[in-house]
Amino acid sequence: MARGRFISLEGGEGVGKSTQLTALAEALQGRGLQLLVTREPGGSPGAEAIRKLLLEGEDTRWNPRAEALLFAAARADHVEKTILPALERGEWVLSDRFLDSSLAYQGEAGGLGIEAVRALHRFGSSDFLPDRTLVLVLDEAEGAVRARARDGNLGDRIGSRPPSYHAAVDAGFRAIATNEPDRVKLIDASGPPATVTARLLYALGDLLP
Amino acid sequence: MARGRFISLEGGEGVGKSTQLTALAEALQGRGLQLLVTREPGGSPGAEAIRKLLLEGEDTRWNPRAEALLFAAARADHVEKTILPALERGEWVLSDRFLDSSLAYQGEAGGLGIEAVRALHRFGSSDFLPDRTLVLVLDEAEGAVRARARDGNLGDRIGSRPPSYHAAVDAGFRAIATNEPDRVKLIDASGPPATVTARLLYALGDLLP
Repeated sequence: MARGRFISLEGGEGVGKSTQLTALAEALQGRGLQLLVTREPGGSPGAEAIRKLLLEGEDTRWNPRAEALLFAAARADHVEKTILPALERGEWVLSDRFLDSSLAYQGEAGGLGIEAVRALHRFGSSDFLPDRTLVLVLDEAEGAVRARARDGNLGDRIGSRPPSYHAAVDAGFRAIATNEPDRVKLIDASGPPATVTARLLYALGDLLP
Repeated sequence: MARGRFISLEGGEGVGKSTQLTALAEALQGRGLQLLVTREPGGSPGAEAIRKLLLEGEDTRWNPRAEALLFAAARADHVEKTILPALERGEWVLSDRFLDSSLAYQGEAGGLGIEAVRALHRFGSSDFLPDRTLVLVLDEAEGAVRARARDGNLGDRIGSRPPSYHAAVDAGFRAIATNEPDRVKLIDASGPPATVTARLLYALGDLLP
C-alpha cells in the first residue's frame, strides 16, 4: 500500500481556517481518500495534555522559550503516535496547524528566530515535514476585521495578543513560503468559501491520486 | 546585597540524595544563609504541572526526545520564576536535581547525547548553570543494593528503569564532572550520613561566606 500524504493547513487569526479545514477534509474524502484529520497543539493523548498547559492560564504563564519547548514536545509526540502510523497505514493526514505555526508565532512574531525554533523540531521530530503546507493569507486589514468579528475564537492565550503580533505572524508565514516554495503555498483566503476551497485543492493537484 | 549562590545536588538512584538534601540544607541554614530549597522537575507552578506529565503514566508515554523537551521547558520556567528571583534577593538556592540530571539521564543513558540535551538548555535557559554541582556517587554494586532496599522511591517512570540504564546515568555524571571540574564535584556517598554531609560542605568551602 502506498504511503499516505501529510498536509498541514496554516494561517493567522481571522483567515477562515476552521471553515476551510472542514471543507478541504470533505473534498479529500469525496475523492475516496482515507483521511485522518488532526490538530496542533494536540493530536495525540500526550500532546493534548501539553495543549492544555499551553492554552490555559494567563498570557505570562510561560516565557517564550518554555512555550516553544512545550510546542516541540507536543509535536514530537503527535508525529510519533498519530501522524506517522496513519501515513504508514496508507491514510492521508490533514493537520490544523503544524511546525510552521511554531516558526511564524514563536520564531518570527515571538522573536526567538525561525532557525532556533526549527532546531527544536530537528531535535524532537527529526525535521519531519508535511508533503504540502497550505497557508491561508488575507491582506492585513481584512484579516483584522474578520478576527474582531469572530471574537470567540480569540479567547485563548495566543489569539488574544495584540495586532502587531499577528502582523508579525503573517510576515513569518510569508518568509517561510519564500524559503520553501515547493512545500509551502500561500493561498488567497479572500472571496466566497467555496472559491477558497477550490484554491486549496488546486494547490494539492500534483499530490492527488 | 550580594547575589546568592546556586547549588544543585545530583546523583543516581540509591545514593542517599534525599537524606543529604535535608542535611545539607540544615547545615547551610545553620551558617546563617537564607536558603531556598527547590527541586526538579518542578520548582515553579508551571514546572510542577510539567512534572506531573513527566512522572505519571506508562514508561512509554513519552519518547526520549519529547521527554527531553519537556524537561527543558520545565527548567526554563523554574529558572525564570523561582531560581533567578531568589538569587537576586540575595538568597542561596539548593536544588534537588538540575540540568546535569537531564544530561546524565536523557543525554547519556537515554542515548540522545549530552551535547544535544545541553543545546536545549542553551535555548531554554541561556545555559544558566549552578555555581556548584555536587554529585553523590557510590560504586555500582552498593548503589544497586541501596536502591533495592528503598523500593518506594523507585516507583515512578524513570526510577523503575533497568540497572543498565542506571549504570549509564552514573557514567554520564562522571563524564560531566571530568569535563567541568570547577563546577561539578563528585562526592563519595559511602559511609555514615554525617560524614557524607561533611564532604558536601567541604566541596562548597570556597563559596561559603
